[in-house]
Amino acid sequence: MGGDHGLVVTVPASLDCLKGNPDLTLILVGDEVLLKQHLAQALLDYQGRLSIHHASQCVGMDESPSKALKNKKDSSMRVAINLVRDGAADACVSAGNTGALMATARFVLKMIPGVDRPAIVSTLPSIYGHTHALDLGANVDCTAEHLFQFAIMGNELVKAIEQIEHPKVGLLNIGEEEVKGNEQVKAAAKLLENSSLNYIGYVEGDSLTAGSVKVDLIVADGFVGNVALKSIEGAAKMMGFALKEAFGKNPLTRLAALAAYPVLKAFKKRIDPRRYNGASFLGLRGLVIKSHGGADVLAFKTAIQLAEVEVKNDVIKKVSEQIQLILAQRESV
Amino acid sequence: MGGDHGLVVTVPASLDCLKGNPDLTLILVGDEVLLKQHLAQALLDYQGRLSIHHASQCVGMDESPSKALKNKKDSSMRVAINLVRDGAADACVSAGNTGALMATARFVLKMIPGVDRPAIVSTLPSIYGHTHALDLGANVDCTAEHLFQFAIMGNELVKAIEQIEHPKVGLLNIGEEEVKGNEQVKAAAKLLENSSLNYIGYVEGDSLTAGSVKVDLIVADGFVGNVALKSIEGAAKMMGFALKEAFGKNPLTRLAALAAYPVLKAFKKRIDPRRYNGASFLGLRGLVIKSHGGADVLAFKTAIQLAEVEVKNDVIKKVSEQIQLILAQRESV
Repeated sequence: MGGDHGLVVTVPASLDCLKGNPDLTLILVGDEVLLKQHLAQALLDYQGRLSIHHASQCVGMDESPSKALKNKKDSSMRVAINLVRDGAADACVSAGNTGALMATARFVLKMIPGVDRPAIVSTLPSIYGHTHALDLGANVDCTAEHLFQFAIMGNELVKAIEQIEHPKVGLLNIGEEEVKGNEQVKAAAKLLENSSLNYIGYVEGDSLTAGSVKVDLIVADGFVGNVALKSIEGAAKMMGFALKEAFGKNPLTRLAALAAYPVLKAFKKRIDPRRYNGASFLGLRGLVIKSHGGADVLAFKTAIQLAEVEVKNDVIKKVSEQIQLILAQRESV
Repeated sequence: MGGDHGLVVTVPASLDCLKGNPDLTLILVGDEVLLKQHLAQALLDYQGRLSIHHASQCVGMDESPSKALKNKKDSSMRVAINLVRDGAADACVSAGNTGALMATARFVLKMIPGVDRPAIVSTLPSIYGHTHALDLGANVDCTAEHLFQFAIMGNELVKAIEQIEHPKVGLLNIGEEEVKGNEQVKAAAKLLENSSLNYIGYVEGDSLTAGSVKVDLIVADGFVGNVALKSIEGAAKMMGFALKEAFGKNPLTRLAALAAYPVLKAFKKRIDPRRYNGASFLGLRGLVIKSHGGADVLAFKTAIQLAEVEVKNDVIKKVSEQIQLILAQRESV
C-alpha cells in the first residue's frame, strides 16, 4: 500500500518480478478489496506463488513512527513485518514511511543480540561500478562501537551479495590524514584496524562515487551518511538539469540532442537511481527492505530483487553469526 | 608559492586579474628569485600595481599545521597573512595547505571578539544559480552556538557579496520534520528561529545544489559540511565520467559527441568547479581566501576575484559589526 503511488506501482512491480523469477513467491499485504481489483487475472496466472494477506490499516507517509506503532497495529507494514517474524515470509519490502517502518521492524523483529543499533545500508553508483554505504539515516549520534558494528554488519552483507571475500571497508572522514576527524571516527578507526576486516582507512565524501581507489563499503553515522546520500542525489539532479538546459537552449542544441539521444539514454541508464533503489535495515532478526517512497515500477522491482538476493544469500543469518563471533572473541580476550 | 602547481598557476592568474581590473594591486609573496624569473616584463607593465614581497620558506601541502606554525615563520603564507594583519594588504589568497593556512590565519589575525570558531564558507552551483555553505571543514564538532554564529557570519557575507537584503538561511539536517536531527542542530534551530535572520528551517543535502526551494546560505558543522561538499564533487566527477564513457563508446557515439560538442562544452562550463573556486575563512579579523590546491589558472583567478569582491563589499567589517550587535543585544536582555 505504501509509497507515494501505492498499488499502481507495487502491483505491476510485483507481477514483473513473479514473471522474471519462477522461484519467487509474493504475499501482497494490504486492503484485500483493492488488491483483488488490481490483481484480477494475476491471482490465477500465478496461483501458488501470489497471495493476498489482508491488512485493514495504512501508515501515512508523514505519520509519526510512535503513533504508527501505537495506533496502526493492523497496518500493511506491521502485518508484513509480522509475517517475517512468524517465518511466513523471508523478507518484507515496503515503500512506506521510513521512520515508521524502522520503528515497527525494530519493535516486531527485535535486534540481533549484541547489536546496539540498526543501520540502513544501500548502494550508490560509482566510477568503479557501485559502493555500499551505511548508516544512511537510522542513527543521528553514533559511538565508535556503533560505527564498528555497522562495519561488521555491512561487511557481511557485501560479502554475501557481491560474492567477494574481503570487501574494502572505508571510514567516512573529512581528510585521509590520521589527525583529522571527530573523536568517534578516530576511535572507530582503532577498532577497525584491530579487526579482521579489510579496513583501508579514512575516505572522503567523493569516495562514495568517484574516489581515487575502489571502496566496497563506506561507514558513517546516520547523520553524515544521510547528508552525503542526499547531497549526491542533489548533485546528480543538478547536473541532469544543467544537461537538459544546455540541450534545450535553441533549435540547434535540440538538434544536437536528437543526434546524441541514444548516448544520453545510455548515460541516463548508467546512473539511473531506480537501478539502485532499495535500502536494507541491518541489525534486525529479519529482513526488511525499504524502497524509495517515490519509486516507480522499475525502482520498486529493484527493491524486490534486492530482497531476493539477500534472502538467497542468507544475509541476516550471516550478519547474526558474525556479530556473535566477534562478541565471543571479545569475551575470550 | 602554494598549491599543487605553484607559480605556473599563481603568476599567470595574478597577471590576468591585473589586466582585467585596473583598480587591483597585487603583492606576490614568496621566493624573490623565482618570482622575478616568472614575472619578468610584467613588473614593468604593471608598475605600481604589482610587487614582490620576499618570503624564504614554503609550507608543504602535507605539513602539519602545528609544525608549519612553529617552524615556518618566514613562509609565504605566514608573510602574506602578516601583510593583512599590518594593513599592507586587504586580503590574502592562497592555494596552500588548508590546515596550516587556517592555523596561521587564526594565530596571526586573531578571532573577531565574540566569535568562538572560524568557519570556511564557499559557493556551490545549484539549479537556482548557486548556494553558499559553511562550515566546510574548519570544525569537526560544533555546538548550537557555533552553528548560530556561522549563520550570522555567513548571512553577512551573502548579503554583502550577493547584494540581497534577507538571504534565505537553512540548517542542514537529515529531514525537514521538527523531530529529526541531532541535539546541536535542534538547539541551533531554536536560536535561528528567535533571530533576525530569514531562517527558513531545516534543509536536506540535496538543497545544496537542487532542493525544492532556493536557499542562499546553508549552515552545518565542518564535518557534515565537508562530507557534503566532497560528496557533491564526487557525484559530479562520476557523472562526468559516465557521460564521457557513454560518448566514447564506439565510432557512432563519438560522432554524436562531435554533434553535441558545443552543447557539452556549455554544460561543462555551467557546472565548472573552477568557476566556484575560493573559500573564505570567516570569523577572523582579516580576509583570507583559500583556493583549491589543484587550482589551474582560471580557478586561481576566480579565488583572487572573490577576494576583490569581499574587499570591495567590506565583508570582514560587516561580519564583525553584526557579531558585536548580536552580542550587545544579548547582554541587554
